[in-house]
Amino acid sequence: MRILIVNGPNLNLLGTREPHIYGTRRFEDHLEELRTVFAGHTIGLYQSNVEGELINALQAADGSHQGVVFNGAGFTHTSVALRDTIAAMRIPVVEVHISNIHGREEFRERSLTAAKCAGVLTGFGLDGYRLAIDHLLRRP
Amino acid sequence: MRILIVNGPNLNLLGTREPHIYGTRRFEDHLEELRTVFAGHTIGLYQSNVEGELINALQAADGSHQGVVFNGAGFTHTSVALRDTIAAMRIPVVEVHISNIHGREEFRERSLTAAKCAGVLTGFGLDGYRLAIDHLLRRP
Amino acid sequence: MRILIVNGPNLNLLGTREPHIYGTRRFEDHLEELRTVFAGHTIGLYQSNVEGELINALQAADGSHQGVVFNGAGFTHTSVALRDTIAAMRIPVVEVHISNIHGREEFRERSLTAAKCAGVLTGFGLDGYRLAIDHLLRRP
Amino acid sequence: MRILIVNGPNLNLLGTREPHIYGTRRFEDHLEELRTVFAGHTIGLYQSNVEGELINALQAADGSHQGVVFNGAGFTHTSVALRDTIAAMRIPVVEVHISNIHGREEFRERSLTAAKCAGVLTGFGLDGYRLAIDHLLRRP
Amino acid sequence: MRILIVNGPNLNLLGTREPHIYGTRRFEDHLEELRTVFAGHTIGLYQSNVEGELINALQAADGSHQGVVFNGAGFTHTSVALRDTIAAMRIPVVEVHISNIHGREEFRERSLTAAKCAGVLTGFGLDGYRLAIDHLLRRP
Amino acid sequence: MRILIVNGPNLNLLGTREPHIYGTRRFEDHLEELRTVFAGHTIGLYQSNVEGELINALQAADGSHQGVVFNGAGFTHTSVALRDTIAAMRIPVVEVHISNIHGREEFRERSLTAAKCAGVLTGFGLDGYRLAIDHLLRRP
Amino acid sequence: MRILIVNGPNLNLLGTREPHIYGTRRFEDHLEELRTVFAGHTIGLYQSNVEGELINALQAADGSHQGVVFNGAGFTHTSVALRDTIAAMRIPVVEVHISNIHGREEFRERSLTAAKCAGVLTGFGLDGYRLAIDHLLRRP
Amino acid sequence: MRILIVNGPNLNLLGTREPHIYGTRRFEDHLEELRTVFAGHTIGLYQSNVEGELINALQAADGSHQGVVFNGAGFTHTSVALRDTIAAMRIPVVEVHISNIHGREEFRERSLTAAKCAGVLTGFGLDGYRLAIDHLLRRP
Amino acid sequence: MRILIVNGPNLNLLGTREPHIYGTRRFEDHLEELRTVFAGHTIGLYQSNVEGELINALQAADGSHQGVVFNGAGFTHTSVALRDTIAAMRIPVVEVHISNIHGREEFRERSLTAAKCAGVLTGFGLDGYRLAIDHLLRRP
Amino acid sequence: MRILIVNGPNLNLLGTREPHIYGTRRFEDHLEELRTVFAGHTIGLYQSNVEGELINALQAADGSHQGVVFNGAGFTHTSVALRDTIAAMRIPVVEVHISNIHGREEFRERSLTAAKCAGVLTGFGLDGYRLAIDHLLRRP
Amino acid sequence: MRILIVNGPNLNLLGTREPHIYGTRRFEDHLEELRTVFAGHTIGLYQSNVEGELINALQAADGSHQGVVFNGAGFTHTSVALRDTIAAMRIPVVEVHISNIHGREEFRERSLTAAKCAGVLTGFGLDGYRLAIDHLLRRP
Amino acid sequence: MRILIVNGPNLNLLGTREPHIYGTRRFEDHLEELRTVFAGHTIGLYQSNVEGELINALQAADGSHQGVVFNGAGFTHTSVALRDTIAAMRIPVVEVHISNIHGREEFRERSLTAAKCAGVLTGFGLDGYRLAIDHLLRRP
Repeated sequence: MRILIVNGPNLNLLGTREPHIYGTRRFEDHLEELRTVFAGHTIGLYQSNVEGELINALQAADGSHQGVVFNGAGFTHTSVALRDTIAAMRIPVVEVHISNIHGREEFRERSLTAAKCAGVLTGFGLDGYRLAIDHLLRRP
Repeated sequence: MRILIVNGPNLNLLGTREPHIYGTRRFEDHLEELRTVFAGHTIGLYQSNVEGELINALQAADGSHQGVVFNGAGFTHTSVALRDTIAAMRIPVVEVHISNIHGREEFRERSLTAAKCAGVLTGFGLDGYRLAIDHLLRRP
Repeated sequence: MRILIVNGPNLNLLGTREPHIYGTRRFEDHLEELRTVFAGHTIGLYQSNVEGELINALQAADGSHQGVVFNGAGFTHTSVALRDTIAAMRIPVVEVHISNIHGREEFRERSLTAAKCAGVLTGFGLDGYRLAIDHLLRRP
Repeated sequence: MRILIVNGPNLNLLGTREPHIYGTRRFEDHLEELRTVFAGHTIGLYQSNVEGELINALQAADGSHQGVVFNGAGFTHTSVALRDTIAAMRIPVVEVHISNIHGREEFRERSLTAAKCAGVLTGFGLDGYRLAIDHLLRRP
Repeated sequence: MRILIVNGPNLNLLGTREPHIYGTRRFEDHLEELRTVFAGHTIGLYQSNVEGELINALQAADGSHQGVVFNGAGFTHTSVALRDTIAAMRIPVVEVHISNIHGREEFRERSLTAAKCAGVLTGFGLDGYRLAIDHLLRRP
Repeated sequence: MRILIVNGPNLNLLGTREPHIYGTRRFEDHLEELRTVFAGHTIGLYQSNVEGELINALQAADGSHQGVVFNGAGFTHTSVALRDTIAAMRIPVVEVHISNIHGREEFRERSLTAAKCAGVLTGFGLDGYRLAIDHLLRRP
Repeated sequence: MRILIVNGPNLNLLGTREPHIYGTRRFEDHLEELRTVFAGHTIGLYQSNVEGELINALQAADGSHQGVVFNGAGFTHTSVALRDTIAAMRIPVVEVHISNIHGREEFRERSLTAAKCAGVLTGFGLDGYRLAIDHLLRRP
Repeated sequence: MRILIVNGPNLNLLGTREPHIYGTRRFEDHLEELRTVFAGHTIGLYQSNVEGELINALQAADGSHQGVVFNGAGFTHTSVALRDTIAAMRIPVVEVHISNIHGREEFRERSLTAAKCAGVLTGFGLDGYRLAIDHLLRRP
Repeated sequence: MRILIVNGPNLNLLGTREPHIYGTRRFEDHLEELRTVFAGHTIGLYQSNVEGELINALQAADGSHQGVVFNGAGFTHTSVALRDTIAAMRIPVVEVHISNIHGREEFRERSLTAAKCAGVLTGFGLDGYRLAIDHLLRRP
Repeated sequence: MRILIVNGPNLNLLGTREPHIYGTRRFEDHLEELRTVFAGHTIGLYQSNVEGELINALQAADGSHQGVVFNGAGFTHTSVALRDTIAAMRIPVVEVHISNIHGREEFRERSLTAAKCAGVLTGFGLDGYRLAIDHLLRRP
Repeated sequence: MRILIVNGPNLNLLGTREPHIYGTRRFEDHLEELRTVFAGHTIGLYQSNVEGELINALQAADGSHQGVVFNGAGFTHTSVALRDTIAAMRIPVVEVHISNIHGREEFRERSLTAAKCAGVLTGFGLDGYRLAIDHLLRRP
Repeated sequence: MRILIVNGPNLNLLGTREPHIYGTRRFEDHLEELRTVFAGHTIGLYQSNVEGELINALQAADGSHQGVVFNGAGFTHTSVALRDTIAAMRIPVVEVHISNIHGREEFRERSLTAAKCAGVLTGFGLDGYRLAIDHLLRRP
């Protein structure tokens, strides 16, 4: 199976900045681990800080992959356009948030994209990506 | 007269995906029909999934066209920046929505851009584009 | 085809009062122009300041006409009864507002009737009536 | 005892339109059944689509009947004037809604008239009228 | 000067019902007193429970009188159409409420019509009508 | 037919406390009267102050009875769990409130359970139970 | 009779500043006119920009005057303490606003003090003070 | 490791009722599968419809287990007490929802308990329990 | 006098868990101290995590004790049923919160039960129980 | 110990006005009783209707006393400045309200100052002052 | 030029209390520095904890100074009267807040006075006063 | 020091369009002036209408500059992603708005980015940029 991880704004900073919050691991390193765990499957990665480029990537993945793991970061709470994109996709999209978005600022409580995703994982750290892929591979 | 149609996010999918919702007609085909109906006028088309590129296109159209038909799609409800762009334009902008945005999710009730447009057409399907151009051509 | 224009409260004042706002044209004069444009079709007009009489007129039009152009004016924002009437009709109803209702008082943002109409036209002045009829005549 | 049924806007359409929703029975037919069930009592009926005419009918009933069954339909959620009318009446008014108004649009949750009625029946179909009269006849 | 008093829904009940609240005086009797106080002026009265008939009366008064005293009663809080009517009038309209509408139900706090009136009098009982006329006669 | 009355918190106090509010009749006495009125049918009663025990009772009634009369009392306004229980039941549940819950504290306006019930009776005193059973027995 | 006018913050600027808004008349001059109109009565005046001093003045007036005309200006919308003071007074207090406070900023819609006053006059300019005193002198 | 699954109200109905929604599998059968997958670990199960009994179970698990998988069902959105219980626990609690709670009734958007959990899984069906345990076992 | 302390959910954990927050004192130890301070009076204690059992305990105390000190903990903010129970009691109930509930999560600001209690003590730690009993014993 | 009682607006009226509400006891008399009860301690009193003078008094007390009992009356719900003052104090401030502020107007539900006080006492009448001092004297 | 600094409630505490928050510098010392920086200009200072005295000071400054630097502190968020005062002034007023008021309590987000000021400086510490004066001196 | 000015959407239009609002000065001309004022320092400029490109620019500036002056324009009120970017930066960011954003549309009141900036300047026109740089250069 081909799975694409789509990471939104500021997630390119993981591991190189604010390690006390985000840890010292670069996402690329974590990606290597994921590829080891899920050997035999293709795990792609796309990151952008531009909302429209994320829309383009999701549209392109719809025909070329069997599932998407999506971390919209700050766009999660504000983007009707990303919601519409996911609603139009025929492959399952799983939403992941590294930290627990509940109990922070009130505007982070609402996820505009969650209602159109197959499922949502919140608060499991980088392990959330592994769980999301694990589910996509077993999904009937 | 030169009229530019500016289409926002996900409208590139028209006709090729989810035909039970959006119909089987690609917007490019519909554009041909519009050009036939309004022969003698220039009907341009710009589509992008990137909010800032839409701003650029609207700014550029301000000097080069006599009117804009604008379908902001998902950005309609979230973009103060597009609202500011339209407010600064000297040519009329008509807002078009293919489906009836009333009676859907509550966040679709509010159009941030509508207040700065010359007029708004909602729910007429692709025919809304024809009506919008028709109005722009007759507008005193 | 038989089309009925249904105008709500205070629209009988058009042209005879506040010409700086509403223009100097009486709606009856505009109606003549519409009948010329759409020669071969019957364009009727009903106006009332009484909400219940508008309900009666819409109910009566449901069997006798093929489409309705409806400007509920002040009732647009407050009448659940008119919404229910339109929802029960089998012919298409197009909602028209002469001025752009967006960006005025907040209570004018919400149209209770719009969700049950085939489409909505806002801000095109009296030309909105022509566009509405044009659409109704072409509607499949 | 003399009981008046007062029906609000669009309830004149019962049975003749949208039978899949409202059923195929005209309210007049149901009224005959009610009169059979409550033989020995006078069961009157008044219907209007005009809010003010409903107010007139309620005011007139106050001296001439012993109870009112009131279905305000769309006016239920918007009419302070009907609320004031019922508050001024000396005979009991029972509010009836054919369908269950809970769980529909949010603006249907609030009944402005309910607080001034003796009781409210929601969701029992046409049988709600029978229950309302039954209660009025036994009311101490 | 010619002044018209326009009374809204349920105000026809004054004096004949609920005397512990509204007093035992019919409005017609109070009108006689007002005519005596303002001898030399014409004080007319129009009452209706129908919103649209009040609109008609206000429109008609605009050319034939020099001022209006308006008690919209229950329509005060719900009628955008009456607000639009008053906004279109060229003669001053003074809004009167017999009881103090502040501190009652929250929906009575908002007057849709007040913003378009010359002034508002609340809580002075029937004396509010006298004060309103007094002001209209002295108004420059 | 077998009908179960399910009474929620504090309804065990009926008749023995605050007789000026709730009357002097114990619910058990009223139950005897209901059993006389509906002779030939089985009218059961379950009361608990514990939300989860009410859920258990409703689940158990789903297979063993043909209808439920449910007065959730204070849980009506707060319990999503009871709403889910009623939504999962295959027999009709009728919601009853002894007093008129409209016009009291604002949090009593919202019934979380009403949307999932067949119908709701509010404000008819203990007679509401009789009307509810009467309806259940005639329900097609 | 002894009547005290109590003016709140910034009302000391009347007539000397922003004459295009407030007119060119100083309140002291208007006071002279009021004293002429109501000859035989004592019309006092107290003005302060300090909320607590207004409370002191109102408390002191309660025993020494028969009525108060109160213009709380900016404190109208924010002072629970002034509301409590008026609620504790045994003489009637009439609230006056020179301009029409409706239709301005939303926070000016709510008057915390109005509910505890005998009546409210809004939008009559300085004439509101005359009407208020006129009413107080005739009040039974 | 010892893991306890705590299931809230109505989850005892899984598999035996509404199979078109919840599927035909009883949770006990799914539990067997989980025990097979996680052989070598102890997977306990507690279910109750009583909020307080769930609190008791969570308190008891705090010393006796190394992690909890918690599906609060309807209590998720209303229980401050369960939130306080989880906040006081020293072992990690993972919240699971079988269906996607986003995009349903608005009151289901808010999870009172989520902010105090280690992570949340929504919309993965019964597979969410497996993912939750998988994470707890690997958690550092 | 006989006074009953009724403690709600999670208060059984006092002293044995999270001592940095709740202190190291078990409530039973504090109870001994209270009994010493108020020698000559009977100070009972009831604790439960089940809302309905607290209702039962309060109902039972109504005849057998002269006053109740009630700490509803998490139920304080969500239970209409407990509010109704306290409203029906003939003996005074004093509400106590160990920590200051103001300035925490917004949903803790509202106490549903406070309006029906004789008084409320917030933020005094365990000393709040002593003050509450002290007041109950002196209450006229 | 030196304790200062700081009373806000209108509390100077206690005992001399509205005795059916506030009782017939002047606060000065009650103060004598408090001084007797707490012999050996210094109990001061400061009252003002001016918000800023209360701020001055609280600032001055911070160095000269060991605790403050504060009844902000109407300022409780509106004064951010008093909240800031209390937040800056190094001695404990206990907030007291004579009547139960819960269940009155909605704007009285929120106390801006409570979050910065050591504790709050509501509804205990004048006895609340004694309880507050009692706590301050024992506070570790 | 003559510039007046007007400081609101609790700003007299700067430097002498809570130095970890406000720093150890008294405002008077900072004022000396400002006077050195802006030698050749007159920099006055007025501080009060009384809202009305601030109004008086602002009114007095309107004729005697060329600009005002205003830190309303706690009154910023609650005072309509100060807003009205600033709106009536003919000299520019610049609003300054020492700390960043964004991201604190929600009631601090709204500044009632900001809309009437020439500009606002937030979060620059005491340096904000220097920047404000710098701007006033260069303002055309 | 190296300072970067980051300008958001539509700010490229300054000086060339709508001179009656924005003035006739291009930002590039103003930049020249700033460079003259702050000779010896490097003042860079980046402008984009694309939200993600602004994020990229801010991330890149974090290592290469000592401070940022940021005018997010329309993104100020809608972008959680920009807020997150600024929160992750180690150099100070000062937010500037040319016009006073207070007192305009309600959605402009809220700045999502302000809480994460060192300070905010609103309403000082282009002079705000100078003040911002001035502060950054002196910032300890």
